[in-house]
Amino acid sequence: MAVKTFPEYLESLRKMKPTAYMFGARVENVVDNPRIRGGINSTGATYELANLEKYRDLLTTVSPFTGERINRFTLPPQSIEDLVARVKINRILGAYVGTCHQRCTGLDCMAALSIVTFDIDKKHGTPYYNRFLDFLRYMQKNDFTANASVTDVKGDRSLAPHEQPDKDLYLRVTEKTKDGIVVKGAKVHQTGSLSAHELIVLPTRAMGKGDEDYAVAFAIPADTKGVIHVVGRNTMDTREIEGVDCGNIRYSKYCPTVIYDEVFVPWERVFMCGEIEYSGEIVNRFSAFHRQSHGGCKSGKIDAMTGAALVMMDYNGTSKVTHHKEKIIDMIHMAETLYGCSLAASYEGKKEASGTYFINSVLANASKIHEGKQMSEMIRLLVDITGGYVADLPSDRDFNNAEVGGLLKKYLQGAVGVPVENRIKMLRLVEKLAMESADTISDLHGGGSPAAHRLTIMRESDLNARKNCAKRLAGIE
Amino acid sequence: MAVKTFPEYLESLRKMKPTAYMFGARVENVVDNPRIRGGINSTGATYELANLEKYRDLLTTVSPFTGERINRFTLPPQSIEDLVARVKINRILGAYVGTCHQRCTGLDCMAALSIVTFDIDKKHGTPYYNRFLDFLRYMQKNDFTANASVTDVKGDRSLAPHEQPDKDLYLRVTEKTKDGIVVKGAKVHQTGSLSAHELIVLPTRAMGKGDEDYAVAFAIPADTKGVIHVVGRNTMDTREIEGVDCGNIRYSKYCPTVIYDEVFVPWERVFMCGEIEYSGEIVNRFSAFHRQSHGGCKSGKIDAMTGAALVMMDYNGTSKVTHHKEKIIDMIHMAETLYGCSLAASYEGKKEASGTYFINSVLANASKIHEGKQMSEMIRLLVDITGGYVADLPSDRDFNNAEVGGLLKKYLQGAVGVPVENRIKMLRLVEKLAMESADTISDLHGGGSPAAHRLTIMRESDLNARKNCAKRLAGIE
Amino acid sequence: MAVKTFPEYLESLRKMKPTAYMFGARVENVVDNPRIRGGINSTGATYELANLEKYRDLLTTVSPFTGERINRFTLPPQSIEDLVARVKINRILGAYVGTCHQRCTGLDCMAALSIVTFDIDKKHGTPYYNRFLDFLRYMQKNDFTANASVTDVKGDRSLAPHEQPDKDLYLRVTEKTKDGIVVKGAKVHQTGSLSAHELIVLPTRAMGKGDEDYAVAFAIPADTKGVIHVVGRNTMDTREIEGVDCGNIRYSKYCPTVIYDEVFVPWERVFMCGEIEYSGEIVNRFSAFHRQSHGGCKSGKIDAMTGAALVMMDYNGTSKVTHHKEKIIDMIHMAETLYGCSLAASYEGKKEASGTYFINSVLANASKIHEGKQMSEMIRLLVDITGGYVADLPSDRDFNNAEVGGLLKKYLQGAVGVPVENRIKMLRLVEKLAMESADTISDLHGGGSPAAHRLTIMRESDLNARKNCAKRLAGIE
Amino acid sequence: MAVKTFPEYLESLRKMKPTAYMFGARVENVVDNPRIRGGINSTGATYELANLEKYRDLLTTVSPFTGERINRFTLPPQSIEDLVARVKINRILGAYVGTCHQRCTGLDCMAALSIVTFDIDKKHGTPYYNRFLDFLRYMQKNDFTANASVTDVKGDRSLAPHEQPDKDLYLRVTEKTKDGIVVKGAKVHQTGSLSAHELIVLPTRAMGKGDEDYAVAFAIPADTKGVIHVVGRNTMDTREIEGVDCGNIRYSKYCPTVIYDEVFVPWERVFMCGEIEYSGEIVNRFSAFHRQSHGGCKSGKIDAMTGAALVMMDYNGTSKVTHHKEKIIDMIHMAETLYGCSLAASYEGKKEASGTYFINSVLANASKIHEGKQMSEMIRLLVDITGGYVADLPSDRDFNNAEVGGLLKKYLQGAVGVPVENRIKMLRLVEKLAMESADTISDLHGGGSPAAHRLTIMRESDLNARKNCAKRLAGIE
Repeated sequence: MAVKTFPEYLESLRKMKPTAYMFGARVENVVDNPRIRGGINSTGATYELANLEKYRDLLTTVSPFTGERINRFTLPPQSIEDLVARVKINRILGAYVGTCHQRCTGLDCMAALSIVTFDIDKKHGTPYYNRFLDFLRYMQKNDFTANASVTDVKGDRSLAPHEQPDKDLYLRVTEKTKDGIVVKGAKVHQTGSLSAHELIVLPTRAMGKGDEDYAVAFAIPADTKGVIHVVGRNTMDTREIEGVDCGNIRYSKYCPTVIYDEVFVPWERVFMCGEIEYSGEIVNRFSAFHRQSHGGCKSGKIDAMTGAALVMMDYNGTSKVTHHKEKIIDMIHMAETLYGCSLAASYEGKKEASGTYFINSVLANASKIHEGKQMSEMIRLLVDITGGYVADLPSDRDFNNAEVGGLLKKYLQGAVGVPVENRIKMLRLVEKLAMESADTISDLHGGGSPAAHRLTIMRESDLNARKNCAKRLAGIE
Repeated sequence: MAVKTFPEYLESLRKMKPTAYMFGARVENVVDNPRIRGGINSTGATYELANLEKYRDLLTTVSPFTGERINRFTLPPQSIEDLVARVKINRILGAYVGTCHQRCTGLDCMAALSIVTFDIDKKHGTPYYNRFLDFLRYMQKNDFTANASVTDVKGDRSLAPHEQPDKDLYLRVTEKTKDGIVVKGAKVHQTGSLSAHELIVLPTRAMGKGDEDYAVAFAIPADTKGVIHVVGRNTMDTREIEGVDCGNIRYSKYCPTVIYDEVFVPWERVFMCGEIEYSGEIVNRFSAFHRQSHGGCKSGKIDAMTGAALVMMDYNGTSKVTHHKEKIIDMIHMAETLYGCSLAASYEGKKEASGTYFINSVLANASKIHEGKQMSEMIRLLVDITGGYVADLPSDRDFNNAEVGGLLKKYLQGAVGVPVENRIKMLRLVEKLAMESADTISDLHGGGSPAAHRLTIMRESDLNARKNCAKRLAGIE
Repeated sequence: MAVKTFPEYLESLRKMKPTAYMFGARVENVVDNPRIRGGINSTGATYELANLEKYRDLLTTVSPFTGERINRFTLPPQSIEDLVARVKINRILGAYVGTCHQRCTGLDCMAALSIVTFDIDKKHGTPYYNRFLDFLRYMQKNDFTANASVTDVKGDRSLAPHEQPDKDLYLRVTEKTKDGIVVKGAKVHQTGSLSAHELIVLPTRAMGKGDEDYAVAFAIPADTKGVIHVVGRNTMDTREIEGVDCGNIRYSKYCPTVIYDEVFVPWERVFMCGEIEYSGEIVNRFSAFHRQSHGGCKSGKIDAMTGAALVMMDYNGTSKVTHHKEKIIDMIHMAETLYGCSLAASYEGKKEASGTYFINSVLANASKIHEGKQMSEMIRLLVDITGGYVADLPSDRDFNNAEVGGLLKKYLQGAVGVPVENRIKMLRLVEKLAMESADTISDLHGGGSPAAHRLTIMRESDLNARKNCAKRLAGIE
Repeated sequence: MAVKTFPEYLESLRKMKPTAYMFGARVENVVDNPRIRGGINSTGATYELANLEKYRDLLTTVSPFTGERINRFTLPPQSIEDLVARVKINRILGAYVGTCHQRCTGLDCMAALSIVTFDIDKKHGTPYYNRFLDFLRYMQKNDFTANASVTDVKGDRSLAPHEQPDKDLYLRVTEKTKDGIVVKGAKVHQTGSLSAHELIVLPTRAMGKGDEDYAVAFAIPADTKGVIHVVGRNTMDTREIEGVDCGNIRYSKYCPTVIYDEVFVPWERVFMCGEIEYSGEIVNRFSAFHRQSHGGCKSGKIDAMTGAALVMMDYNGTSKVTHHKEKIIDMIHMAETLYGCSLAASYEGKKEASGTYFINSVLANASKIHEGKQMSEMIRLLVDITGGYVADLPSDRDFNNAEVGGLLKKYLQGAVGVPVENRIKMLRLVEKLAMESADTISDLHGGGSPAAHRLTIMRESDLNARKNCAKRLAGIE
């Protein structure tokens, strides 16, 4: 069986030697760095749950490519059932880690490649699909995690890749040799890039004439020479480093900027190289899958937020306050909206030429549009119910201070019978859920900007059918 | 085959002799009354499409109860496929008639009864389920339309049925005889009651001790003695009567108040009588089904509205205006949201003891909450795109007037190349879609009030699971 | 004293002989036509209240132009106090008539002209300002009502006036003679044009080179030869004609299309003729004033709607229902938002060169943006609180019918102690407030489209000041 | 002249010896602590601007109590002009510091006390008003800053103060002596308590029988014995301590929990003691003033956010993107809404018995309701426009790192011609504006919870007048 346990996953990461920086210094031991470890734990939950009796049947399946039982996070969907499982798994994981589990992006890349490499080959007679299948079997056998290296730095947004004064502002091929290609560029918001074994690079946008060098897709190990991970700032990051006031006691998220500084990629790992007309196709497929992944995991995250809000009501003595209950309903409603649209996108999926199933993209984007607009509202409701201590709760170090700790614990008491320690813990979790930037910003910008989600549903809807429907009703022939 | 055609449906209605009033006068010929006919045509579309090649496989199926091919509007769902077909059929019909087709309520009653009568019998040893099956087979063989007689007048909303000073403000049993029961009361907002062959009466709310006489369910022909249909006012109603300025050239909606003035119901048509503890159950089942019906048909209605908006953009010369396109996206987004949540409610349905499949009620209500909040916004967007003539378009009689008709047609010209007649027709359709009260108000109050939808999703969600999830993340044992 | 009473106002209208059509027929007696009379009564309220002790000091003032006490609806604001009075008067009137009082548009035209004619003269040495002052004194002495003839039919919206294939799709000067000009065109949504003594024509948009003939402003009596008023359809219009089920027992609104079919205007009434560079200026001034007028009257209309909702709660027995109270709060909140922004626009007004005071346009438009977005939400809340009878209340003719009237009155009973007649009346008023198109559509399109309001606040805000503020905080020199 | 400069303000703070804790340790030098200093600088801006030519006339005035020129932050409003100045000053300061300036709360307490102490004295013959005037003159002469010590910890929210198992969960009088009183309790979210010279304690809610000990108001120096300030956590706090990645280069905010551990207050500083019936009155007055303060400063903060968004558009090359412009309009619109309603609240203010002017509370709360709902939306728009780097921008230490700094600067380039350093600085400012918790949470919970704002506008609106208005229109006598 190819399904790794959480300890095996950690072990496999320890064998890697990625180049990583954080706050101006090199990070040698990535796995035990407390800030990165929170993210690794989140991805680790995908290994953990796959081995739990309760979730095994949902999280694992037999691969038609290897014949072995695998973790679903290594399988491009091969049926409607697979598509539906995506959403349910993501909801469970979103609630289980209370943040992003960071393993969906790699799967979404593989799903996109499993469709588009087949189509490119069919048109151009290229060998991409078989190369990809070799890679896929390798990932499945090892139960590896992949990371989506999609979003380029982009430079001046009003210019195409080849029009930028600095040619490297979209990742590009700088050299082609007998053995492979050399690439240069940088990808940003690389959620969990140090929790992954492999980086899968896809183009970030549709390309046109002149952009040939930028239309490239490939996969390489996360510790390949020339790959530099720079872990940026997010709010509350130093708390993880100091091991205090973390809120979520085990899980977190980080999103490095990853620089590809003249990186060599062997041909057997190159899945696209110059076919500009498929660049938009590949990013659209990836984005549709990824936006739907959000629909699952964010509904799970709202479940965790709703739970925190309900507990705070118990702890504050406001469980019977009507306007608080109304806010809980708003939270449930939004979780179900994301979930319902994402599930429907799966159930209404279709088989593509390669055999992979693709979701209904309009429904997937409909879910994401709600996420981009409403997750900040979910936070607002959670903060409203919780109260002002989201802004300024004293540190655990204060609660443990000999002089003021006792006083603070006296005054932080909530509803009768609730241990003050529990109330403090839950207040801190709310702070994490509401105000940690790495996770909350992805509600908006994960899977492309809200404007992109909007354009997608217009582009993929049949406007003429709607016009004809209205004309018939009005009696216009 | 039991599937009626539209002419056969009309013919079957002509044989009935219901007691009907409108604007203070008795209506003798219901079928040819131009105001009621618009509604009959809408329901007629369910017969029409069932006989079209394109839709036959979706709208008809073989009944496990009769072995014959039937219209799905007579079949309580017996599979996930049946549940999914509900939503797709309703979306098609919503767009096809551009208003309410008025046949879903009867089906939703039958679906609810097919579950609850079985459960009552199991507990009480009553004969309701078999009686209901006889009725169901009768409906299927004749391809009859039923009407949901659910919403009581309610009197003082702060009082239970038996607490009202006037005991008839909820429909109740006033007498029980060897042959049947006598009932008295009134049901309101009886969409299409004169387009239906049978009225199915269900209680409108949960009942408690003292309400036994009010816990009653049955079915009777719409022209039963003592049943009085009073067709009320809606905006634009006189236009149908005068046959001018209708907007939607064939379809419309009407919703009588139906008075049960000492009506006799034979025992074989009584499906519940006094089992107060099932009163809430039956209305909850009906409401969940009916709220989901809305999810389908209103997404179809938004399709028609979106089409009208797009055509108006063509006709006004504003097809390239960015903020109009953004509004179109908002309309598509909402249609897909209703559709996605409703579809997911079907796909996630479950089999009940009687064999009928029940939808996921949380997802069905999630869709309805959006409808109740957002349909008025859809109208706003449609009116915004269309322009001010939604308020004050001259009458077709003015356009045909010898003195001013020519001038009006000159000045009503829109984009170059668009016949002015078409622009006038489409403006009138928009007026109908946006401002006709019978249909637009049902976005809000159809299937119970928005507050009821909200309470339902809270009641049926697992709040403790969410609390435990948050406690685990916060480290609270 | 120049302040007319309501009877004097009616009398003055009776002396006029406008050319009017409605539903394909000529209307000879405008004042006694029941549909038009509702609108005349609304405007009449501005005369009525000016003569009531309680409101006299607010509605009347002494004119600096005539030295006489006048109705403020004939006075371009000459002080901050005048600007503030605008808003307060409009709120009172909006609540008093429960619809549009239809006299603000003329005042807003006069206010705009009192600023721009002065500016044009200063640049071009034209005699417009003095001509305008003569007209103004005439209006004040007679306490006449003017109507804003601003919105052209516009034809293809993507083309400028002179680019239209039919040159008359914006009103234009077709001939200039020694005595005056001849104009041709049509103006739409002419709220209350038959309740007015004078029509004031302004251009509807900014003009460019080639549009000289369209840059024209003037005033003429509403019954001038060649002026044709065509009263269009609105929902519920036939009820006024039949005198039944009106809802609002005295007041209503109508908005004709007015055709100028070769109309002669003497020079002394021409206030602009060809000065294209002031065309945008004049419409911007008018629009800013008029959008603010809405802020006052619509907050008053929300007051009436809130009152209707509160009474319905009393009548239905739901006065203690929390979610209803929350909706009342939303209604109060929006009324105060419109009122607050509009009041602030007055208090922050500035004196223009001619002496007229102009409002703060950003604040005025801020109010209007809320109106355009939120009035449909106000209706939704009102309907939600009221219940489904907004859609299908039986006619008063049914309530009076010998056979069913008694039954209907029995079943329409609401809360204990409330006369059923009162409940029926209030339900009918709600239907009028919520579903009558002439008034509700103006929430959106009155004073220009929402997109125009939005552009205005961006254009008139200092974006660079904001940029510099951010740069300083970021430490960017 | 009593107007201090910023250096004089700093100097005056250095003379104080408050007891302060942060992160488990005692803070001895408050003024130079980099985390607290950001807040002190913010309050310092109120001193700085008062001495700038451009703002002097707005920020200072002559006190009717001392006859000297004073900073307006020490003057309860004595005229409509004073009320209006409040809003304008706060908007300017909000934009100037890009966060909370933290001096309004003290003024709002003094304004409330100047009204209510007078009223209490009038009823009870107490000496509170004169004591308060002495205190006020002291504040004015020294140009001191006061802090509002209002929000109690509250314990179990479902219990009244005297019902709590621990009697100290609302601050209370534990002893009365000849010289004064001894109090015990804790106040939370004490914005800028270490930037203030004096703490003004008011009750946090209406009190009833049994709560007499809790109905207490007084003022004491911030470094009084027994007063303990515990500075809690907020997101990004360690950055200030480390002096890196701060975003806003000079200004910040902090909100300690302040414990009153048996604190003695001399009688001359006691302004209320046991008059339970005025407890609600005093908190309502304070809240109304304070909610309006928010209307001013948050509109200023939105100005700074709008500026940051506009600069990011310039820096990213998206200045011409339509949907970005629409979001800018939404931001301007909300700033003007808060500003308009708050200004109107001032202009419509009224003189109270003591001579202090009180704002229109409904309009002030209308502004605050928008703030509580829309500030999170403003953040969402800012983040949407800015892009994903709000979540994970590398540290300045990375940009300065020899190995990766150059690469990062290469890849962070934006629009052609923009120095990469400026883009990085502006991205960091956006992170601060969007994700720093101390400031953003106050949008919601500052001045009481949103539910409190809502209840206020219902309580203070004339509901019967609205009902009567609707009844008249419906013809109900």
